[in-house]
Amino acid sequence: MTLKKIGFVGLGVMGRAMASNLMKAGFELTVSNRSKASAEALLASGAAWADSPAAVMRAADAVVTIVGYPRDVEQVYFGEKGLFAGFTPGKLVIDMTTSSPLLAAKIGARARELGGEALDAPVSGGDVGARDAKLTIMVGGPETAYKKAEPLFAAMGKEWKLQGAWGAGQHTKMANQIAIASNMMGVCEALAYARAAGLDPQSVLASISGGAAGSFSMSNLAPRMLKGDFKPGFYVKHFIKDMGIALDCAREMKLDLPGLELADKLYRRLADEGGENDGTQALYKLYAPERN
Amino acid sequence: MTLKKIGFVGLGVMGRAMASNLMKAGFELTVSNRSKASAEALLASGAAWADSPAAVMRAADAVVTIVGYPRDVEQVYFGEKGLFAGFTPGKLVIDMTTSSPLLAAKIGARARELGGEALDAPVSGGDVGARDAKLTIMVGGPETAYKKAEPLFAAMGKEWKLQGAWGAGQHTKMANQIAIASNMMGVCEALAYARAAGLDPQSVLASISGGAAGSFSMSNLAPRMLKGDFKPGFYVKHFIKDMGIALDCAREMKLDLPGLELADKLYRRLADEGGENDGTQALYKLYAPERN
Repeated sequence: MTLKKIGFVGLGVMGRAMASNLMKAGFELTVSNRSKASAEALLASGAAWADSPAAVMRAADAVVTIVGYPRDVEQVYFGEKGLFAGFTPGKLVIDMTTSSPLLAAKIGARARELGGEALDAPVSGGDVGARDAKLTIMVGGPETAYKKAEPLFAAMGKEWKLQGAWGAGQHTKMANQIAIASNMMGVCEALAYARAAGLDPQSVLASISGGAAGSFSMSNLAPRMLKGDFKPGFYVKHFIKDMGIALDCAREMKLDLPGLELADKLYRRLADEGGENDGTQALYKLYAPERN
Repeated sequence: MTLKKIGFVGLGVMGRAMASNLMKAGFELTVSNRSKASAEALLASGAAWADSPAAVMRAADAVVTIVGYPRDVEQVYFGEKGLFAGFTPGKLVIDMTTSSPLLAAKIGARARELGGEALDAPVSGGDVGARDAKLTIMVGGPETAYKKAEPLFAAMGKEWKLQGAWGAGQHTKMANQIAIASNMMGVCEALAYARAAGLDPQSVLASISGGAAGSFSMSNLAPRMLKGDFKPGFYVKHFIKDMGIALDCAREMKLDLPGLELADKLYRRLADEGGENDGTQALYKLYAPERN
């Protein structure tokens, strides 16, 4: 069965852009969100509104979710008016929130129990990637469900890959966040050092960002750090959520990740000092001259 | 005065390739090295041999040095038969070793006292960059000397930039190494997590290396980590030397760099366990499954 009627729950910056790309690709959309205001543009372009995740589920063959925290995912799926309250055999749910691999497995098991399927499919690429349909999508779950969902992924992303069973998409996203976490310290510390040594950090960046020290964060976030532009592309509070999930999983696996532990500690300090709604590049604030 | 007769001290893997590129660009070379065997190919192509840095200095308008540790630099410049023993007014010395910014300033002051000039000009780009004349060169010192040295930089590198006064080249290189240090933890930890979670690390890399988690190290060193290829591109022992210099400088500046401190601690542990002659990607060994 080819998917046609799609439900969408969670219309934040990411979700709105992704839902809009699904509509552009020709899918019939029914949406739901905590605040209806965020749905206005989508409704104006022809999306239908439903009052609850359960109602979205009843109206659709497959539902995509992208909300904030694992507790929101839990509520959207297992709440009284959650998706599973409207789930019937043959249906598919796809959680694109960055969330817990264990919760992904719990959702998968419940969907199968009810005669359907579930995928976890968190993304990277940020608001720009969401808008331009250039997300990277990391998927966990059964291959049949993955094949069925591919037209949706194609409408929202530029790369997608099945990484394994339920939770494997989430674990892959965790690996992504783990790499970013330590690198962000490296970028901040390189800039802080350059400044403290009396160099021109812009000129230093020009010398080092094209070589072995180069990274996406150095090219894209270091310039914002130097301008003092700490506006969120990706929120500190959400990064802390992600690092917390990764650290929980690592502890479960008895894996020691000292770099991630340190980055998590620094980001929590930043949040404690009021930076939780800044973008992740605000880590640079901890290295400000007046603090050193 | 245009430089023509160039001396070269330090014929390791980097030095041999750089000296060879200077010859290809038409400079007349006189070389010296602890072991003469390393000079054979250069001598066969027409370079002259000198028995000491002092003798090299007497034979040349400018001398380039690239040796191992700051103590080697100290010896090559200030030793009994060191460069300054053969230095005369109007001459130029360029230290391309990654070394101490303070030592660079000491060399600069001494050269000026003797009526000449000095630059510190450490590089990034590794053995491949040295061979292909594609090094990035980070320079500190007076602008007149920098202008004079540009034809040499052009023969060895693809980018060069004056970053400030004596020591500024070294400080820029330190910023480069600082960024690499924490990022290397992030790359290792992402791979270790993927493996521990039961994913295929190659497949995870394919998903994450093109996005926000991407970096030179992830693209170039993670594949070697996964193959268990720990052969040195860049030696652990030299990276520890560099991190030590950066940490000393940071302490001097009263700058706290917790990511660098942690990376330094991990690399020292790796060296203690016999990994000092491995390449820097061998940090991945500390995250091996049997240790976690």
